[in-house]
Amino acid sequence: MTNSDRKAIGVFDSGVGGLTVLKALRRAMPHRDFLYLGDTARVPYGRKPPAMVREFAREITAFLELRGAEAIVVACNTATAVALPDLQREYKLPIWGVIDPGVEAAVRATKSGRVGVIGTKGTIRSAAYQKRLEALGMTVWARECPLFVHLVEEDLADSPEAELVARHYLADMPAIDTLILGCTHYPVLAPMLTRVLGPGIRLVESATVAAEYVRVTLGEDPRSPEGRITHFVTGDPIAYEHTAAVIGGVEGEIVALPITDLKCAVAV
Amino acid sequence: MTNSDRKAIGVFDSGVGGLTVLKALRRAMPHRDFLYLGDTARVPYGRKPPAMVREFAREITAFLELRGAEAIVVACNTATAVALPDLQREYKLPIWGVIDPGVEAAVRATKSGRVGVIGTKGTIRSAAYQKRLEALGMTVWARECPLFVHLVEEDLADSPEAELVARHYLADMPAIDTLILGCTHYPVLAPMLTRVLGPGIRLVESATVAAEYVRVTLGEDPRSPEGRITHFVTGDPIAYEHTAAVIGGVEGEIVALPITDLKCAVAV
Repeated sequence: MTNSDRKAIGVFDSGVGGLTVLKALRRAMPHRDFLYLGDTARVPYGRKPPAMVREFAREITAFLELRGAEAIVVACNTATAVALPDLQREYKLPIWGVIDPGVEAAVRATKSGRVGVIGTKGTIRSAAYQKRLEALGMTVWARECPLFVHLVEEDLADSPEAELVARHYLADMPAIDTLILGCTHYPVLAPMLTRVLGPGIRLVESATVAAEYVRVTLGEDPRSPEGRITHFVTGDPIAYEHTAAVIGGVEGEIVALPITDLKCAVAV
Repeated sequence: MTNSDRKAIGVFDSGVGGLTVLKALRRAMPHRDFLYLGDTARVPYGRKPPAMVREFAREITAFLELRGAEAIVVACNTATAVALPDLQREYKLPIWGVIDPGVEAAVRATKSGRVGVIGTKGTIRSAAYQKRLEALGMTVWARECPLFVHLVEEDLADSPEAELVARHYLADMPAIDTLILGCTHYPVLAPMLTRVLGPGIRLVESATVAAEYVRVTLGEDPRSPEGRITHFVTGDPIAYEHTAAVIGGVEGEIVALPITDLKCAVAV
């Protein structure tokens, strides 16, 4: 069997946040190959207009498919919120986002049916989480937390300013028992958030359930003893590795991918 | 006279912050051509290791010289703090930073000789401002403000969270009469900072004095009725324009510049 026969699972995010999802996928399917794309030249997505993020997501999906992805995980809540239905309509390969898994994790965790969700401006304003949760009978509180991504990327996840900002964002939170970390960067903030919120509120994230969905559909690939990971980054590879250190580091090869090459993929 | 005879002034920053300096340069020399490089694929510089920022600054200086810059303005405090002496030693063309101008602006403004400076981690830890101010007999207080760049880029310069974070960073500020905004993004925060600090503290920035230095040395260029501005961006041009809107927008042409092309310049 040649390398070109090996199909990989494509995973993408605006930057390093999706590495939390990649880690869960890898834990669930250690024999699978993964292509991760970190769009670090255009990070963050959270404040960008939805149409712009949709275009980025299209380019990346096309590129990953060209490079041999047999399925795609949109490991970015903002891109899932604004682009997933379009991607699923326009591409034939299976594509998962991280919002349905986050909703499922919350519904499994809550006892009271009162659930909160925090995320970027793009994610929260899309109301993607809120609509799904309400359709399932939940009472929902939602809040944009635009500084949280930067706190993580600045390695300030457990700093006094992180706590200060978190108390501000969560000041008007009503009585809930479950809080969805609706951005793939946020699991890094969990220890600080637990301190701010106390032990009575369960923090849930998408990564583990998302990895379950993919594993159930695609199954494991036992062809190689251990899968390979290739990271394509639109920004600088060295800067990527430096930022990724705050989120547990990078496993696998890092390849620089000029935006111009990415834009070509969608035209093929 | 052909286009290739026209010499430009090269200006660079990690991203959009240097546009505050470009604006002052353009006000001082409206007939000059400018080449602005926004290294948005590798922004922010503030937390990156000094050796990495030095390498970025070298690549950019080499590129701007190849493209016809006759002089360079390092419109980024972090790059000035960690790379300016190396650049001035390694390149023959005149190169200015933004730290000496900021120091001069502060020394002109202070009555008490008690001066504060705020900036990125890279700038403050280099102690570049502190050493110069102390050599001039000033008493200096300095503080890293890593979230300020992000507050500006998230269009939150005048938000409740900006005020909260500013009060935190400035909580232990002693009695000073002048505060240097030691990052080219920070002028956007001035209205909020004035509200937090009260009217007794003068906020000074580098841009106007930096533009004076360059104009005095190079003089105006009356060859064309109005100078041209070209922006090279290592990230996505559309994303650049979107982010730049928070800092007054982009005037001139925007050209996408792959990091790989930039890296070639230093090898020429």
